[in-house]
This record gives sequence, structure tokens and C-alpha cells, in this order.
Amino acid sequence: MDETLLMIPGPTNVPRRVLEAMSAPILNHRGVEFGEILEDTNAMMSEVFQTNNESYLLTGSGTSGMEALLANVLEKDDKVLNIVGGKFGERLMQLTETFNGQSIELTVPWGHAVNPDDVKKILEENDDIKAVTMVHNESSTAVVNPLKEVGNVLKDYDALFLVDTVSSLAGDDVKVDEYNVDACITGSQKCLAAPPGMAAITINDEAWSVIDKVDSQTYYLNMKKYRKSGDKKPSQTPFTPSVSLVYAMQEALSIVLEEGLDERIKRHALGAKATRSAVKGLGLELFAEENAYSNTLTAIKMPEGVTDSDLRGTMRNKYGIELAGGQDHLKGNVFRIGHMGMTGLNELSMTFAALEMTLKELGQDIELGSGVVALEKAYL
Amino acid sequence: MDETLLMIPGPTNVPRRVLEAMSAPILNHRGVEFGEILEDTNAMMSEVFQTNNESYLLTGSGTSGMEALLANVLEKDDKVLNIVGGKFGERLMQLTETFNGQSIELTVPWGHAVNPDDVKKILEENDDIKAVTMVHNESSTAVVNPLKEVGNVLKDYDALFLVDTVSSLAGDDVKVDEYNVDACITGSQKCLAAPPGMAAITINDEAWSVIDKVDSQTYYLNMKKYRKSGDKKPSQTPFTPSVSLVYAMQEALSIVLEEGLDERIKRHALGAKATRSAVKGLGLELFAEENAYSNTLTAIKMPEGVTDSDLRGTMRNKYGIELAGGQDHLKGNVFRIGHMGMTGLNELSMTFAALEMTLKELGQDIELGSGVVALEKAYL
Repeated sequence: MDETLLMIPGPTNVPRRVLEAMSAPILNHRGVEFGEILEDTNAMMSEVFQTNNESYLLTGSGTSGMEALLANVLEKDDKVLNIVGGKFGERLMQLTETFNGQSIELTVPWGHAVNPDDVKKILEENDDIKAVTMVHNESSTAVVNPLKEVGNVLKDYDALFLVDTVSSLAGDDVKVDEYNVDACITGSQKCLAAPPGMAAITINDEAWSVIDKVDSQTYYLNMKKYRKSGDKKPSQTPFTPSVSLVYAMQEALSIVLEEGLDERIKRHALGAKATRSAVKGLGLELFAEENAYSNTLTAIKMPEGVTDSDLRGTMRNKYGIELAGGQDHLKGNVFRIGHMGMTGLNELSMTFAALEMTLKELGQDIELGSGVVALEKAYL
Repeated sequence: MDETLLMIPGPTNVPRRVLEAMSAPILNHRGVEFGEILEDTNAMMSEVFQTNNESYLLTGSGTSGMEALLANVLEKDDKVLNIVGGKFGERLMQLTETFNGQSIELTVPWGHAVNPDDVKKILEENDDIKAVTMVHNESSTAVVNPLKEVGNVLKDYDALFLVDTVSSLAGDDVKVDEYNVDACITGSQKCLAAPPGMAAITINDEAWSVIDKVDSQTYYLNMKKYRKSGDKKPSQTPFTPSVSLVYAMQEALSIVLEEGLDERIKRHALGAKATRSAVKGLGLELFAEENAYSNTLTAIKMPEGVTDSDLRGTMRNKYGIELAGGQDHLKGNVFRIGHMGMTGLNELSMTFAALEMTLKELGQDIELGSGVVALEKAYL
């Protein structure tokens, strides 16, 4: 291989087709030709979000999408229930505070998923909660939160359901309309397998009716401006977008729909299951609790006697495979394997072969082949 | 030509070298290899800003840079002097209001440059002005404001000088240190000739000392986070950046420095002068007042009896050349030619040849060759 295999939870390896689409000449972003590309791409975004809402591309990191979720909705002292079970849940809480909301934190131990009953309890106790934030797939802990079930709880309350699906959309089921999600964001560089640098957001009528009453606390990410420009003919963005990344998103979304969204999600689920089998086959331990396993990445406890820099350094420098470390207090205690985007059996088998060799070289008592064989069995 | 020639004030045509650099495989954005690219690119940014400050790339449109200028500096009711002589000056005033500042507007008629004495007068009358905002090159009117002279006025006051050089950096002199600019932003898609989607900012110690005392009103564009991540080894960004566009910026900045910053600015000045000669040769009228002419684009009054859609439509559909229209109240009254980035004699001569033919076809009484000959003479 002449390039590093990215087995991190984003950015993921980008198909050649997408990289080539990205390098097309720049079009006038206010012209008819670009407007058609934008409309087509936004329509595919809505299809992947499984919604009838309009969707909008934002030129920015996933965090710009998170900022858009809150800065358009909140006014001073608005109460927000933040479900916090990892770094990205925390970020939504920090954003709530940046935009002058009052955060009610529902703390979930790292590695666990939220219990929908706990959400219900807090909503019962506080009838003035304006919004609930949740990260669907918490990539810091490799945990998936029960999107459908929490959405079901929210049905009986006025609070908006604001959801981050940055690391799950197109790799796990995100049925925005069916699950009562009021506003949902994602990023380009995870399961969609486009390069990083774009976020996308979809907003339903209920959320719009709140947004329309609020003076947005952001100018760049003011969604009212995006709606107004999006409605123009030709369709536009309020500020010069990343034209090349819009091309990339169009191509990446076409690939998703050619594969079929359901097929793609099934492929992610199988990759996740096979990865867990391989981890267990190797005698390693999963970090997340059972029934909370993510479809798109897996967190593994660092084996006793192995340092993060030895393990990931060997994988990177000797085998050309990039794994992710732990974040915050998990630094050095877990490592993470992303299996999202275009990643499948071949990438996982080479990763586990290299991981077996790395662990052997680092003096671990493991049986060569035990991970790869378990992986193969899961796929057969 | 198989692609449209962009003669608009950004995005500009991007050199093949840059498009190819952009399509390289994605690197881990927290790794050593990417960190080196980021450091190299940021260092070149500082060189082009002509500053010893650190510079930072932002994944976003130019407007994200404008937001960063104000959202990190302002607290409620801070007084800001906004110099407003066009659409982008207005935008800095709107941003001031979004971030709860008290705007003092210095209105400059569209087509004119600000008079530094007027800035001084307002600063004398208000000793509590926290910042002055100015757009160096107002692309809505094709006017350049006197950056050096306003910076010289600011030397005697505490107010920060916050400057937008989105459409001038690398096409006109922006000596951040020498001109007393405290924070300065630019965009990727103008004179730097990279694709749109990145902004850059540089901040001096005086501005940092203010920023350090303020709770930023943005999370995504919180510059304290950018500084902290930038200082890490390897250097990083706080949120997953647009990796591909960082590659593009590195290549585009390399091209700028290979050409030589001074040479590039001279080339822009010559292109601007030749364009004005050609406009006059054709018997058309410039919109901006003399001595306020931009180096990077030219605004031309729409000839009597010609509509914007006829003129720009013919140029686009028949000749494959994209010109810009007027913005806001100038819509239909002016058209604009960008001569920024890689644009030079060849692009201008084909533009004026096509413009002559277009005007003739639209029934205007012009002499074929009168624009092109004036252009040639200016270049000879």
C-alpha cells in the first residue's frame, strides 16, 4: 500500500471517484449549473436522513453543525437537557453554555447508553425544557444511544429533539421523521466517506417554528439565511461554499444510494459484529457495555503491559494502519477501530492480521490467527 | 475552452497543481505528517500577511473569518466603529450587532473610500471604542480603502483594528505588522487562487490580550481553542479540518511565494490598470471614484440600454466567460470584472474581446478593438 489505511473513526479513506469529482474546475457558486448540483446533493442528504425536510450543507467541520443546532434555537436561560456520556455529548453541553442556555446534565457513565426512562423522568420534573440534545453514536466511547426509543419519549413533550449523527448517518439507522428528530446534523468524513470539511443539517417544521422566533446567536451559521438562499432559483448558499467539497459530497452520496442505504447499514452492522468477534477471539476486552455497541467503531481496552504509543505506533509505522487512541480520561486506556464508510472485510482482515503481529511483537501472549479467524467466521 | 473562465471576484480559476494537490488521499488530521503540512501552511500564511504573528486556517467561508474577528473580541454593549461603504462593510456591522456590540457606523458612499480623518474624528469623540472594523478591498464596489493610513490613525488609540482582506490579500499590499492591524482575515478563493471553503486569520498580541479576557461568543470559531491546538506537537486544529483544502492552501501559497509576493501584487496592479484603460477605451464608465480603484476587481457602469441579463448572459452562454453583477442597490446598474488570483493579460484580452462583441451584438455603438487595444497598450 502506498497510503496509510485510516481505521480511525473519521476521517475515513475516500474513494478515488470522490477525490476525482472533487478536483473538477470551480464553478460560479451563484450560477445555474452549481445550483443544480447543490439541489441534487441536498435532496440526497434528505434521502439519507430519511426525511421529507429540506437539508442544508454547511462549509465547516462537524462541530459547525453542532453549533448550528444550538445557536439557532437558544435564547438566554433556556433550559436544555444534555445527555452526556462521552466527549461529544459534553461538547453539546458546552455549546449550550456558550449560547447562554441553562444546561441540565443527564450523566451517563462512559461506555453505557442512555436509558430513555431517565430522559422521561427529567422531562416530567421540568416542564420548561426547550430542547434535548443527544449524540446518536458517541465515537469517544463506541456507544450507540437508543435514538428511536428516546425519540419515542420526546413525542409526548414540547421539547425539541436535537441530534448529532456525525458518526452514524449512513452507517446506522437514522430515520429522522419516524424517530421524531426535530433537527439533525452530520459530517462528511465518517460513514459518508467524503473528505472532512462539510457538515449537513436537516430541520423540521417544529424546529423551524422555534428558530423563526429566535434571534440567532450566530451569523455564519444562521439557518434562516441558509433557508432563504436555498429557496432561491438557482439554489444557493448564503456564503461562498466549499464548491469542491460539494462536488465530493454529491459523488459520495451517489455512492451511498447506489449501494443502497439499507445495504450500507447492514454492511456496517456486519463489520461491527465481526470486529467484536475478532477482538474477543484475540482475548481482548470491549470497552462498551453489551447492547450499546456502535455500528461504526469499536473501543477496545488496552491490554495490560502495552502502551498506547507502542501499540498504535507499531500499527502505524510498521504496518501503515492508523488506529485511534482514547480521548480525555480514556487516553492510554483504550484504543479504537473505526469501521465506517467504505471499510469492510478486506480492511478489517489486514487490520487484525497486523494487530495480531503487533501484539505478539510487544510480548503479548496471543495466538496468531485467533482474531482473523473469528473475523472470517463472522463474515461467512 | 472546455471550462468557464471565472472573471468574477472569487472564486477564481484554480491552477491544476492546486486541484491535484487537493485530491491526495486523506491523512489523519491528528498525525505528525498532517501536523507538518499545517505548520508549513500556517507559516506561509503569516508570510503573505507580512506578519510575525501566528496564523490559523479556519474550515469555513470568508464570512466565518469575519465572524471570528468579532465573536472573540466583543462583550455586550462594547462600542465598535464600523466603516461601511459596501456590502461587506455592512456585514461587519451586522456581525457587530449579532455579537451584541454597539455599532457606530461611519457611512461611506458606495464607490468611495473612507477618509482616515473621519475615523480619527469619531475616535476623538468616543474614547471607549473597543474596535474599528474595515474591509480593505470592498468587492461590492471595487474600492480599496486606505489600509496604511487608517492603521496610522489607529496607532494613537486603544481601539483594535480588525480588518477583512478577503479579496485583497496577495493582490494588494497587506502589511499586517507595519500597518498596525491587530487581527486580519482572508479567504482561500480570491487572490490566493485556492478553492473556496477556507478562511485564515492572524492575531497580534494586543488583540490576544483582549480575546483572553473575553468569553468567546462562538464555540466553533473560538480562537483560544485554535491557538491551544495549534501549539500542540504535532500542530492541530481543534476540530477536524478540511484536510483536502489544507493541501490546496499549501500548494496555492507555495505558488504565491514562488512567484514572489511583491511580483504578484505588481501583476495585480498592472491587470487593474490595464482593465481600467480597456474600459475607458471602450467608452464605458468606471463605478468607483478615482484614487479608490481596487487592485483586484473593477466595477463598470452598465451602459444605457443594456440589461444585466443580456450582457452577462451573452458573455456566459456565448463566450464561456463569467462576469459578476451588481449587489444590492447596484443590481443591474453595474457589472464587475475580477482580475485576481492567476488572472493576467490572456484572460483579460479574451474577456475584453468577448465584451466588445457582446456589446456590438446588443446594439451598442462601440468600436471593435477599442478595449483590447487599450489593454495591450497598458501592458506594453
